[in-house]
Amino acid sequence: MREATAFVPGHVTGFFAPNPHEDPLRAGSRGGGVALTDGVDVTVSEGSGVTLDGDPVEVASVERVLAALDVEARVDCETPLPLGVGFGVSGAMALGTALAAAAAFDLERSENELVGVAHRAEVNAGTGLGDVVAQARGGVPLRVEPGGPEHGEMDGVPGRSRVEYLPLGELSTADTLAGDTDALATAGERALARVHETPTLATFADASRSFAEAVGLLTDDLRDVLAAVDDVGGTASMAMLGETAFCLGDGLSAAGYDPAVCEIHPAGAVLR
Amino acid sequence: MREATAFVPGHVTGFFAPNPHEDPLRAGSRGGGVALTDGVDVTVSEGSGVTLDGDPVEVASVERVLAALDVEARVDCETPLPLGVGFGVSGAMALGTALAAAAAFDLERSENELVGVAHRAEVNAGTGLGDVVAQARGGVPLRVEPGGPEHGEMDGVPGRSRVEYLPLGELSTADTLAGDTDALATAGERALARVHETPTLATFADASRSFAEAVGLLTDDLRDVLAAVDDVGGTASMAMLGETAFCLGDGLSAAGYDPAVCEIHPAGAVLR
Repeated sequence: MREATAFVPGHVTGFFAPNPHEDPLRAGSRGGGVALTDGVDVTVSEGSGVTLDGDPVEVASVERVLAALDVEARVDCETPLPLGVGFGVSGAMALGTALAAAAAFDLERSENELVGVAHRAEVNAGTGLGDVVAQARGGVPLRVEPGGPEHGEMDGVPGRSRVEYLPLGELSTADTLAGDTDALATAGERALARVHETPTLATFADASRSFAEAVGLLTDDLRDVLAAVDDVGGTASMAMLGETAFCLGDGLSAAGYDPAVCEIHPAGAVLR
Repeated sequence: MREATAFVPGHVTGFFAPNPHEDPLRAGSRGGGVALTDGVDVTVSEGSGVTLDGDPVEVASVERVLAALDVEARVDCETPLPLGVGFGVSGAMALGTALAAAAAFDLERSENELVGVAHRAEVNAGTGLGDVVAQARGGVPLRVEPGGPEHGEMDGVPGRSRVEYLPLGELSTADTLAGDTDALATAGERALARVHETPTLATFADASRSFAEAVGLLTDDLRDVLAAVDDVGGTASMAMLGETAFCLGDGLSAAGYDPAVCEIHPAGAVLR
């Protein structure tokens, strides 16, 4: 075929507990998030270089996927999502590269193998711990056990909803994960247990918000936005890890902001 | 909400090895199949009774799902697929009922729990062993380990394709599974190992065909159809379990038949 395109949904993590492990296929995170209809189209073809919305970029997870699959290729990505503010764009680029490269170059890998390649690339690049497996699944994925498809275990919260999001600024995943992660782990496990016990969108929104409050990553700007959404009866929270507010429903627009609007993407990554 | 609709893709099994177990969540089958864009829309609302394309029907798996969820409801199903000829319609009705009932009546069950309820209902009703978990996943699902989501393990063959199918007659899943299943198990494990080793659509089609030849379920009419598709360079096989021919690509129409046409459905069951 020599050219193929994959669509990978964006993914906002609401809460997580990092689970480091020396084997990247066992490393990852427990937690929960939302797959978004706003995602990344990744086209792999003969050539070289990586572009994002037409601009050349260097994305370590994509380079690692190509190396793991032993292919040289050109990777062109198109997305309405901003990079580096909590939407799993690097994970989507990695997963989309794996899926589209396998189709373009007839690589004879199973879907789990390809997801595993992308997960390992993302973990080793230090840019994410759970986006890839969540993006492979879609919906409102719960990472019940960490790791790639061989070792991890997923569940999901049923439901469809409008999703609004408002990026305010960047936050380095690598820096945050390099810091003290005990508070993250405790709050993340608590949130996951709560949502797994009562798997509804309302509980997911609440647990995400409680997690954001507990782990001390909220900036003053984010606090202002979340409080404004509270005032109109909504529940917004923070996209982990970015200075980005998100909510299920229309809380951000009801509070007078001008958020981007999409929906929960019910399915995982697919070849176009 | 009190009314909700789920879409569940149809599912044709190409090969399988039955794995009976006294615990229905551990029972099931290893094997592989194809999820179809032709599927079943299942609407659950207040009331009682089950309909399929407007006609009242009794479907044991649906009754069992409602009982397990402790709800009384009306279940209306619409599908272009024929019932009882190998498209997983009973599994789709069971899974769609579980997903839509949970949404309609705010049941607070996770997606794995709902898939498990439908899988158990289907196994206990004796109408299927692997359709439900395959339909929850979508694509070209490989059932690597049998059972519901807690115990089973899935993988998938990447790829998109046109799918053609030609129903010729019925075949009872319950009767077939009540017979000698040793030959099924041996041939099914062989086919799965082959496809897992080389996960391509071409290998899937070949392994399905070899399985159908090996297990002695082909009728004379089916043999004629498969031979005709061979003659035009295609690879058709038999939908397990129905007197139905299917192929990836356009082999049936190229051989002069007038098959139904759909595509591989890349995603699993979703709420509408």
